[in-house]
Amino acid sequence: MSYVLGHNQYGKAEVHVVRVFRDNPDAPHDLVDYNVSVSLSGDFTDAHKTGDQANVLTTDACKNTVNSYAKEAGEAVREPESFGLALAEHFLEVPQVSGVRINIEAFPWARSHDNPHAFVKNGDYVRTVTVTGSDAGTSVVSGLKELTVLKTTDSEFHGFYQDKYTTLQPTDDRIMATAVTAQWAHEGTDVEWGKSFDQVLDAITGSFAAAYSYALQHTLFDMGSAVLDAAPSVAEVRFSCPNKHHFVVDLSPFGVENNCEVHYAADRPYGLIEATVKRTEDVDKTSAYDPGQAW
Amino acid sequence: MSYVLGHNQYGKAEVHVVRVFRDNPDAPHDLVDYNVSVSLSGDFTDAHKTGDQANVLTTDACKNTVNSYAKEAGEAVREPESFGLALAEHFLEVPQVSGVRINIEAFPWARSHDNPHAFVKNGDYVRTVTVTGSDAGTSVVSGLKELTVLKTTDSEFHGFYQDKYTTLQPTDDRIMATAVTAQWAHEGTDVEWGKSFDQVLDAITGSFAAAYSYALQHTLFDMGSAVLDAAPSVAEVRFSCPNKHHFVVDLSPFGVENNCEVHYAADRPYGLIEATVKRTEDVDKTSAYDPGQAW
Amino acid sequence: MSYVLGHNQYGKAEVHVVRVFRDNPDAPHDLVDYNVSVSLSGDFTDAHKTGDQANVLTTDACKNTVNSYAKEAGEAVREPESFGLALAEHFLEVPQVSGVRINIEAFPWARSHDNPHAFVKNGDYVRTVTVTGSDAGTSVVSGLKELTVLKTTDSEFHGFYQDKYTTLQPTDDRIMATAVTAQWAHEGTDVEWGKSFDQVLDAITGSFAAAYSYALQHTLFDMGSAVLDAAPSVAEVRFSCPNKHHFVVDLSPFGVENNCEVHYAADRPYGLIEATVKRTEDVDKTSAYDPGQAW
Amino acid sequence: MSYVLGHNQYGKAEVHVVRVFRDNPDAPHDLVDYNVSVSLSGDFTDAHKTGDQANVLTTDACKNTVNSYAKEAGEAVREPESFGLALAEHFLEVPQVSGVRINIEAFPWARSHDNPHAFVKNGDYVRTVTVTGSDAGTSVVSGLKELTVLKTTDSEFHGFYQDKYTTLQPTDDRIMATAVTAQWAHEGTDVEWGKSFDQVLDAITGSFAAAYSYALQHTLFDMGSAVLDAAPSVAEVRFSCPNKHHFVVDLSPFGVENNCEVHYAADRPYGLIEATVKRTEDVDKTSAYDPGQAW
Repeated sequence: MSYVLGHNQYGKAEVHVVRVFRDNPDAPHDLVDYNVSVSLSGDFTDAHKTGDQANVLTTDACKNTVNSYAKEAGEAVREPESFGLALAEHFLEVPQVSGVRINIEAFPWARSHDNPHAFVKNGDYVRTVTVTGSDAGTSVVSGLKELTVLKTTDSEFHGFYQDKYTTLQPTDDRIMATAVTAQWAHEGTDVEWGKSFDQVLDAITGSFAAAYSYALQHTLFDMGSAVLDAAPSVAEVRFSCPNKHHFVVDLSPFGVENNCEVHYAADRPYGLIEATVKRTEDVDKTSAYDPGQAW
Repeated sequence: MSYVLGHNQYGKAEVHVVRVFRDNPDAPHDLVDYNVSVSLSGDFTDAHKTGDQANVLTTDACKNTVNSYAKEAGEAVREPESFGLALAEHFLEVPQVSGVRINIEAFPWARSHDNPHAFVKNGDYVRTVTVTGSDAGTSVVSGLKELTVLKTTDSEFHGFYQDKYTTLQPTDDRIMATAVTAQWAHEGTDVEWGKSFDQVLDAITGSFAAAYSYALQHTLFDMGSAVLDAAPSVAEVRFSCPNKHHFVVDLSPFGVENNCEVHYAADRPYGLIEATVKRTEDVDKTSAYDPGQAW
Repeated sequence: MSYVLGHNQYGKAEVHVVRVFRDNPDAPHDLVDYNVSVSLSGDFTDAHKTGDQANVLTTDACKNTVNSYAKEAGEAVREPESFGLALAEHFLEVPQVSGVRINIEAFPWARSHDNPHAFVKNGDYVRTVTVTGSDAGTSVVSGLKELTVLKTTDSEFHGFYQDKYTTLQPTDDRIMATAVTAQWAHEGTDVEWGKSFDQVLDAITGSFAAAYSYALQHTLFDMGSAVLDAAPSVAEVRFSCPNKHHFVVDLSPFGVENNCEVHYAADRPYGLIEATVKRTEDVDKTSAYDPGQAW
Repeated sequence: MSYVLGHNQYGKAEVHVVRVFRDNPDAPHDLVDYNVSVSLSGDFTDAHKTGDQANVLTTDACKNTVNSYAKEAGEAVREPESFGLALAEHFLEVPQVSGVRINIEAFPWARSHDNPHAFVKNGDYVRTVTVTGSDAGTSVVSGLKELTVLKTTDSEFHGFYQDKYTTLQPTDDRIMATAVTAQWAHEGTDVEWGKSFDQVLDAITGSFAAAYSYALQHTLFDMGSAVLDAAPSVAEVRFSCPNKHHFVVDLSPFGVENNCEVHYAADRPYGLIEATVKRTEDVDKTSAYDPGQAW
């Protein structure tokens, strides 16, 4: 019996390339550290159904292209968004390719001791980029993940719905902490990517610090609004934020007072709060995040 | 300035519950081991915009419900699909909830030494389930992940497209290996879930073993066809399969012959091949995988 | 100021080599899957103090040797202990090397569907080997890790010491579960390694299943005794076993009875129980586990 | 047959406690974030051999003690070394306990936006502490891990020993990168722990940046010497440093020049370099790192 090939895409994932900028002998070295994944869609039915690979650009060639473009793309390599755009443009020129998605994880490094060529990895967050391209145009989604923030007060949680299974006690003072995963879709590609990223990062950490919170949902909306205030090119921002629960430990059996001082940091389960904040009602950027395989 | 709240969902993730069936004193014990995530959507705008939580069922109550249903749901607990359906039905009864997604990781255990209450964890794969529900109905997607298969021959790769960046040599004999992630969407919910899962697992491993391969894409289509042949309730199956490259090591500098015997198992980068195989052209189950936040 | 170089060792870690046995055209293929780490010690003071590398065998050459020996060592490759012994013997012939440690993780695979060249990875455990060698002789330590076992009853815990911080309630029926890490040191190297490993694995799972338990410590001693009963070459066995706590969930707020049926599988913290069981008082194999850097 | 119980130890591992200092209403909040593991040894033969738990302080009580001491220990909680010392002293007072080891992972946080109670997790490294105590006295080992450093030049590697398996080409300019794991043993316990840690951290990153390198071994000795120069209480320092290889990609097939600009960051295998640098020949702190189970 003959079945139907539905959506399909393929490419090379996790090409980990480190590019050093060292051509100016008088200037300090600089570097970018990217983990690049390429995914192509197009006319690949024969590759699946008969095994004929005549249309298939090898995933090995995808890897070679990423590495070579880390030099060939020149100044575009310095920001992951512009590097992703250069790669997407290239792969769309392959005749049988009709869609491309470039995912980049960019790992930040900080200069060490004012040395011109020594660096310490900044582990505070990972910067992410998704560039998608097709005949319908090109989209850029910037993002970050693994940014962990915590506030020791200015967070309440009460007044919630009660059902049969509700045993949680309300609180008017608690630790709130989360590991922020955020992605934000830009209108257009004429953006100063580095500056825009810094604005969003500052908006997220700044609003988290400043906003009084009645729930993590409440804080996500504040953070999203701050992002849209700060970065003009951003049309919408999506958050996926685990509520990293810090439970106050009951020390009364030991005769010890605990005024929101000693907390147990739980691993699982955790609340998971996800929300989109967008500039206007008619923004819909869903296809810019994943144009195909829905997971 | 006031921005717009787009798609949002929340719930408790990774409620790790182990249920023992031990009520029959004459029968051996049995157990299921589930990691359950609940995600709710509905009328939660106030929770985000003003901080008013009056509509919010707490994520703690979600956790309590999962734990209590591990007893209350009776025989439905024995298969992750039926347990997910019971939970989805319950949460849809909460007035302000209009959509629910239940994700379950089910970890298999094997009885040990014919003992009535001793088990060894079977680490060959993790079984997965996604149940989504709304006014529009309920969908079940079954799946598995971390199933690693390898064949030492009967795999070729040649005749591929050549561009400027193509340096890969064709081969007519190679190791092919992948860690299968697969999800398959059912028509309807009147399914013998355990039997259906076993049929799909056997179809995947059996077709991987039997099918001569001209590319991983080619093998995915074979595996997908075998799944549809074996399991009548399955409307489509989606694969996401890394090509776990095993490169033949060049031992000639040491005067040692290597006839596809010694391989270097590479970590990164890896080909990533993703494809859907469906029963007919008009099948579209995308919303059953993730009804909202697109990542 | 001049400081002193203390213990030092170096080498290539995690050489992941997959060897296929396929030279007999009439026989099914077979394979071994090893992750090999080599560590050398000896006369390497200049490499540290002046940067002179004249004595340093490169870690790249260590890698090449592992790969080439995966063919050159012939039948010795089929068991990780004999492969480690062959590698240790080789590196001790390098003049400036006085000590060597070979660590191997061996990943088991099972034949699939009686196919002569298709395999499914067996994820139940990882087999481990440490071979150490020096002028003082050669030692072999076999082991396993990530073997997760659970019993649903026949486990009690009570009668324990009470101090000011003791709030735990005693129990006469509970789940006991652990992820076994075990290493056992052999007397001599004239051992049928595969058979010996199977005997130990069966002894561990069998005694865990059969033994009534008054504590995880109690069960470790039973498992250790079973290992020594089963495998004549084993002089001692060391266990490091997390107590994977399964707490009975209190469902009484929801009016649901829970007779040791519904459990919460906790991640952290966990009890960690470590013990050595040895054949006689005068056995001391400590140096066979790690001959140098104490962590 | 009766076997012998060798070394054994037990306790609660990974008690993740977050302590907030908020008792002064006029001062900004502060916090420490510790993952604490307690391991006890002593007279526990019966617990293993007969199952009699009369001597066993429960691991649950160990957890309770850590949590309560996060308040009770007062100012000692502010540094992981002094917190570990307080815990060790307590557990040694339990009559049947003769040895104790406290391991702490301390996760650094940075104040955010000058806010008095908002923090961002600093992911650059994890601080570690091992405190061991017995009748023979108490030892403190401080440490860090996951500190990743890289230099884009001032690193050579050549002049190494050549054997049959040596194919590596020498180089006079390469990236050198490593993820530093270091532990350093103090003489005595009268140390300003925070200040001492900062001195060592600065010595490690500063000497890595400044020192011209002829091998990672060479750099480890430089870093170790810098640590001993900077921190008077430190008797010895031990390093375990993977050589995070960055290989120059050959772009010549594509007609692209690559002057140490584009690198492939490899995962496995990796060189692993381990060395101890100590103040004088007669320093031997091995028992301070792990007093028992040798792995």
